[in-house]
Amino acid sequence: MIIKVNLKPEYDIKIEKGIIINKGLPEGFVVVDSNIFKKYKDLIKGDFIIVKAGEKNKSIKSYLKIMEKLAEADTDKIIAFGGGVVGDLAGFAASTYKRGIPLIQVPTSLLAMIDASIGGKNGVNLGGKKNYAGTIYQPEKVLIDTLFLNSLSKKEFRNGLAEMIKYAIVFNKPELNRFEFKVNSKDEDFGKLIEESCQVKVGIIEKDVDDKGLRHVLNFGHTIGHAIELLASLSHGEAISIGMVKELELGVEENLIDKEKLEKVKRCLEKNKLPVEFPANIDKEKVLELMKKDKKGSLVFAFDEKNYNVKIEEEKIRKFLFNS
Amino acid sequence: MIIKVNLKPEYDIKIEKGIIINKGLPEGFVVVDSNIFKKYKDLIKGDFIIVKAGEKNKSIKSYLKIMEKLAEADTDKIIAFGGGVVGDLAGFAASTYKRGIPLIQVPTSLLAMIDASIGGKNGVNLGGKKNYAGTIYQPEKVLIDTLFLNSLSKKEFRNGLAEMIKYAIVFNKPELNRFEFKVNSKDEDFGKLIEESCQVKVGIIEKDVDDKGLRHVLNFGHTIGHAIELLASLSHGEAISIGMVKELELGVEENLIDKEKLEKVKRCLEKNKLPVEFPANIDKEKVLELMKKDKKGSLVFAFDEKNYNVKIEEEKIRKFLFNS
Repeated sequence: MIIKVNLKPEYDIKIEKGIIINKGLPEGFVVVDSNIFKKYKDLIKGDFIIVKAGEKNKSIKSYLKIMEKLAEADTDKIIAFGGGVVGDLAGFAASTYKRGIPLIQVPTSLLAMIDASIGGKNGVNLGGKKNYAGTIYQPEKVLIDTLFLNSLSKKEFRNGLAEMIKYAIVFNKPELNRFEFKVNSKDEDFGKLIEESCQVKVGIIEKDVDDKGLRHVLNFGHTIGHAIELLASLSHGEAISIGMVKELELGVEENLIDKEKLEKVKRCLEKNKLPVEFPANIDKEKVLELMKKDKKGSLVFAFDEKNYNVKIEEEKIRKFLFNS
Repeated sequence: MIIKVNLKPEYDIKIEKGIIINKGLPEGFVVVDSNIFKKYKDLIKGDFIIVKAGEKNKSIKSYLKIMEKLAEADTDKIIAFGGGVVGDLAGFAASTYKRGIPLIQVPTSLLAMIDASIGGKNGVNLGGKKNYAGTIYQPEKVLIDTLFLNSLSKKEFRNGLAEMIKYAIVFNKPELNRFEFKVNSKDEDFGKLIEESCQVKVGIIEKDVDDKGLRHVLNFGHTIGHAIELLASLSHGEAISIGMVKELELGVEENLIDKEKLEKVKRCLEKNKLPVEFPANIDKEKVLELMKKDKKGSLVFAFDEKNYNVKIEEEKIRKFLFNS
């Protein structure tokens, strides 16, 4: 299955079982994370650099190391082989090495397949500040081999699932019905669900490649979600899951969302073992504090295609949080 | 005088005596070099970072320091205040901080005014490799205050003059006649010469913003010039001056250039105290070696608007160099 991305220049997202695992990686300098390297080093053909797995290595220092290695190897193409951290590091490096060289994304996590590898946004952390260094730079192509999903942990899988469900909610997709049943990466229709998610993401970035408008809709669940992710020991997917439910509850109070929709979303998430309530003892004053400082806008919420820059008053949010 | 740059988005180059020295810098985080800081610190209003003057500080480590300082100051706009080194560092930082924030170029050297500040190419050195990290990123505007020229050393002035003369040669401009007389920054018509040079550079980048075609014409004098700059203790302008003469001589041998043109160019450069002969004892085998490894293409020459990707055989060049 091929999805065409209509940007300048146009490029393809290829989704195919075994496209990498059976054939190996394309030629180019490979940026790979340590976990993927352990399992799949035989797929790498030439020069490579290993980045330690984990968000804290998505740093400007890792970027520097990659750039120095690229100059040594004197390469003309970069392959990002791993999850979101590797995709961001390799994307940033590709966009700035010799003022930009071709980049191929080979995402191995569900989240990277349907989200991070598509759209060209990359970023590394600067001091404590998330994604403060980066660019928007489109890949030459994206190669998605769904066989990689078989080796994901349940936690990693749910991380991607939360974003998949987010797409279905935001655009009122019929696929939302599917999530009322438990979804597994080995389900026959799972490839179809990935395609559908990629299509949604492509549709958004084609309309707003510079991240100045519609792309903000993807922030649904993230205004509250990011804040609790920073405070509690939750994965991104878990935090976003809670964030989506809480933001919909707030939307119901603001008469922007049907109660039915909220109930349906809750059923879908719970069926797929994603949390829907705040962690016990979370400091709600701090949640509010972090929401106010959000880089994407202070107390701004995204609900759907039409309402993605909704400002809500602090007092209303405080009341909602403390009653919730 | 305002020159409009017709790119997306459009921006202005403003050339005005005293526009900075009499009014101070615009608001924003200032990247400034140590020499300019000593002379003009009173013009800076808010946060700033000082970069040590000199090409060796145009490094990815200086870039890192600037990025960290930007994150601390949490700024939304960058002012590049200095020569080419500062322009490149600030430009690269602006293009990658928060995926791109506005940049204002305030060039203080003649070379930066007519060349580096216009066109958006930036770069820092990676290990020993020149400009291996960088982007193409247009400024929000360029503010040129010609009063800064009064404090340039003769050497710095000639550095810019060589590139000014290059524009006139490449495009067969009537201004070339002017350089048959000695040019001084305090001459009444010097502002006009700067405008003319900026117009030439703008004309080129409008046609080739991505540096894939016509922009290569600017490489005239640089194929030989870069090589001797690396081998002899010459300024960039001096090396380019020799490079232009030697490349024209080669062009005459190849029947691409009139002998008259060559003679005229030599007169212009000599009148303005720019060198036209190889330094004594330069290792010509090494010159050839470096020319072969040139990042912009191996043994490729630019002469004018029509001939800017001329490949010449190694044996011919060797013979020319050793007879020259």
